[in-house]
Amino acid sequence: MNDRQYMELAIQIARSAQGQTTPNPLVGAVVVKDGQVIGMGAHLKAGEAHAEVHAIRMAGTKAEGATIYVTLEPCSHHGRTPPCADLIIKSHIKRVVIAATDPNPKVSGRGIEKLRNAGIEVEVGLMKKEADELNEVFYHFIKTNKPFVTLKSAVSLDGKIATVTGDSKWITSSEAREDVHYLRHTHDAILVGVGTVIADNPSLTTRIPNGGKNPIRVILDSKLRTPLHSTVVTDTSSNTWIFTTDCADNIKKEQLEQLGVTVLSLGDNIEIEKLLDTLGDKGITSLFVEGGATVNSSFLKERAVNQVITYIAPKLIGGMSAPSSFGGEGFTAMSEVLELDFLKVEQIGPDIKITSIPKGAR
Amino acid sequence: MNDRQYMELAIQIARSAQGQTTPNPLVGAVVVKDGQVIGMGAHLKAGEAHAEVHAIRMAGTKAEGATIYVTLEPCSHHGRTPPCADLIIKSHIKRVVIAATDPNPKVSGRGIEKLRNAGIEVEVGLMKKEADELNEVFYHFIKTNKPFVTLKSAVSLDGKIATVTGDSKWITSSEAREDVHYLRHTHDAILVGVGTVIADNPSLTTRIPNGGKNPIRVILDSKLRTPLHSTVVTDTSSNTWIFTTDCADNIKKEQLEQLGVTVLSLGDNIEIEKLLDTLGDKGITSLFVEGGATVNSSFLKERAVNQVITYIAPKLIGGMSAPSSFGGEGFTAMSEVLELDFLKVEQIGPDIKITSIPKGAR
Repeated sequence: MNDRQYMELAIQIARSAQGQTTPNPLVGAVVVKDGQVIGMGAHLKAGEAHAEVHAIRMAGTKAEGATIYVTLEPCSHHGRTPPCADLIIKSHIKRVVIAATDPNPKVSGRGIEKLRNAGIEVEVGLMKKEADELNEVFYHFIKTNKPFVTLKSAVSLDGKIATVTGDSKWITSSEAREDVHYLRHTHDAILVGVGTVIADNPSLTTRIPNGGKNPIRVILDSKLRTPLHSTVVTDTSSNTWIFTTDCADNIKKEQLEQLGVTVLSLGDNIEIEKLLDTLGDKGITSLFVEGGATVNSSFLKERAVNQVITYIAPKLIGGMSAPSSFGGEGFTAMSEVLELDFLKVEQIGPDIKITSIPKGAR
Repeated sequence: MNDRQYMELAIQIARSAQGQTTPNPLVGAVVVKDGQVIGMGAHLKAGEAHAEVHAIRMAGTKAEGATIYVTLEPCSHHGRTPPCADLIIKSHIKRVVIAATDPNPKVSGRGIEKLRNAGIEVEVGLMKKEADELNEVFYHFIKTNKPFVTLKSAVSLDGKIATVTGDSKWITSSEAREDVHYLRHTHDAILVGVGTVIADNPSLTTRIPNGGKNPIRVILDSKLRTPLHSTVVTDTSSNTWIFTTDCADNIKKEQLEQLGVTVLSLGDNIEIEKLLDTLGDKGITSLFVEGGATVNSSFLKERAVNQVITYIAPKLIGGMSAPSSFGGEGFTAMSEVLELDFLKVEQIGPDIKITSIPKGAR
C-alpha cells in the first residue's frame, strides 16, 4: 500500500465514528512500519483518547521509526487530553503524514511546527479535500459558532408533501424513512415547528436496527402551543428544548419545565439567526431541520441552509392546494432564488435521494 | 461478433431514425456472411423501403447463404411496399434472426411462417426486450389507437414551475432546454393549454443544432381565446390544431381557420380520452404534453400518462402560492395517487432528468 491508501484507511476509520464525537471532529490515524500496519485508531468520543493515542498505543514500542498517517493535524495544546504532538515525539515516530491542518486559526500549524522542531519529517495536504469533507460540520461550527443546518424534505415527483386533504402516510418508502433515521443519529439536534408537533405528534427519536443516538429535540413554538401530553414532552429518551417568545404564557412555560422541557425565549419573535447563535452557544454543531412548509421557508428566507437533502418518491399527487416542502412567501424573482449544487443522487429503495449544498459552498 | 452483437448493431441502426418513421415502427437489419457484415439498413421514413430492403440491396448477390438479423418480424403482406419475407426468400438468405414478432395480432407470426415454409432457418426472441422498448410508442398506438403520452415538466428542487410572481425564466439550464427540443423532435404532436399560449406566446417548434422535425401543435382552448397574432397561429413552420367545444365563437373559429389553423370541437367539453381518440384517428402516435399546471392535472386526473419526464434544477424558490407542475384538485388520498417507476436518472448540465412510467407498465 502507498501513502494514499494508508490515508484512505485513516479516513475510513475516522468516518466510522460519525455521530458520536460531537463537538469534536472525526479523526483517524494509522501507524505503518516496514509496509505493515502496526496500529490504528479513531477518535470515538469527546473527552476520550484522540485517534493518535489509540493508534500509538496499539503499536507499542514498535512505533519507533514508524510513519503515522493522521487525517487532522495533531494537537499541540493541553485540552481534556495531553497534546498528541508530544506523544508522537515521545514514541520516536520518524515521519508524520497529515491530511488537513487544524481549522482553528489560533492553533493551526502549531502541531506541525512542534513536530518539525523535534526533527520529525512532516508532510501535509495528502487527501486534504476528503479529510475536510469528513469534518464539514465541525469546521462550520468552529468558524461560525453556529450549527451546520441540514434541511430535509420528502416529496412526490410533483413536489408535494401531502395530498390536498393532508394525507401524507406515506409518500416515501420504508427504505427512505430508515435513511432519515440514520441522519437523525448523525445530528446533534432535530428541529420542527409546533404545527408538526400538534398535527403528527412525532417522537423525533432515532430508530435504526442497531440502536442510535437521539438528537436533542428543538421545537419552534412562539405561543407555547405544544400540548403537555405530546410525545416530545412525555418521552424522556431525549431532551426537548422549546424556543418561544416573550409573549408566551408563563403558566404554560412552568408546566412544560416541570415536565423536564427546557423553554427558552428569543425575545419579541423567533429569528433564525438568533436561534442558530443560541444553539451554537449551547454546543449544538449540527441541526437537522425536518420542518413542514412554514419552518422550511423561514430557513430558506434567511438562506440559513448548509445542506439540502430531498427524497423524491415515484408518485404524482397533484392539487393546487396540496402543500409543497417550502411555503411562506418565497422568492419573487428567479434572480433571487437560492441556487444549489447537486452533490449526489442516490437510489434509496424505489425513491431518489438528492444531496445538495448552496452553490459554490464547497 | 456473435448473434447478440449483430442484433445490438441492428437495434442501434434502427434507433438512429427516431422521430422520422412515424406512423411506422423503428426497424434495423444487418446481413452477415462468413463473419463479415455485408449489408445493413434501417427503415427511415413511412412509405419508403423497409430495413430489410436496404440491407439486402447493399449485400447484393452475396446475400445468398447469409444470415439476416432484423429487430422486427419481416412483413408478409403487401402494404405501401412489397412483403419483405418474399424478398428474403428470393435473395436465398439461409437464416433469419428476429428480435420481436409483429405487435399486430392479425399478422403476428405470418412472416415467420412464410419464411419457415420456404425452408429458411428462423430464430425468434433474441433481445426482444430491447427491441420492444425501441418501439414502445408504436406498439402503444397499434394496441390502443391513441397516442403515447409523455408529460414533461421542469421544476426547482422544491417542485415549483415559477416564483409567486410568475417569473420562470429560467428554472432549468440551457442544456436541459436543448434536451426538451430533442424530445419535441421525436414526438408527432406537442400540446399546451391556451393559458400558456396567452402567457408565454411560445412557438412550440423544434430548435436543435442540426435542425429537427416540428411536431404538430395542439392547443386546448375551450373558448377559443387563442390570440390571432400569437406565434402558434402566425408561424407556419408547423400545423396548429386547436381543440375547442361547441360553445366556442363561430366568427373566431372562421378567423383562425382563415389563418390556416385547424379548429376541432370535442362537443360540450374537452375530455382527455375523447381528445386522445381523435388524435389517434388522425394518425398521431405520440403526444408531448408541455402544459402548465392545469393541463397537466387534466391528464393526471384521467391517468392518461404513459411517460413522465421531469427536469429538476438545483434551486429553491419557495412560496405557498408559487405554482407547482400539477394543479387542479389532485388526488385526495395517498392510496389513489398515480404511482410510477423511476426508469432513468440522468445529469443534464447542472440539472437532473428523471424518466418515469406508470408503475408496472413495462
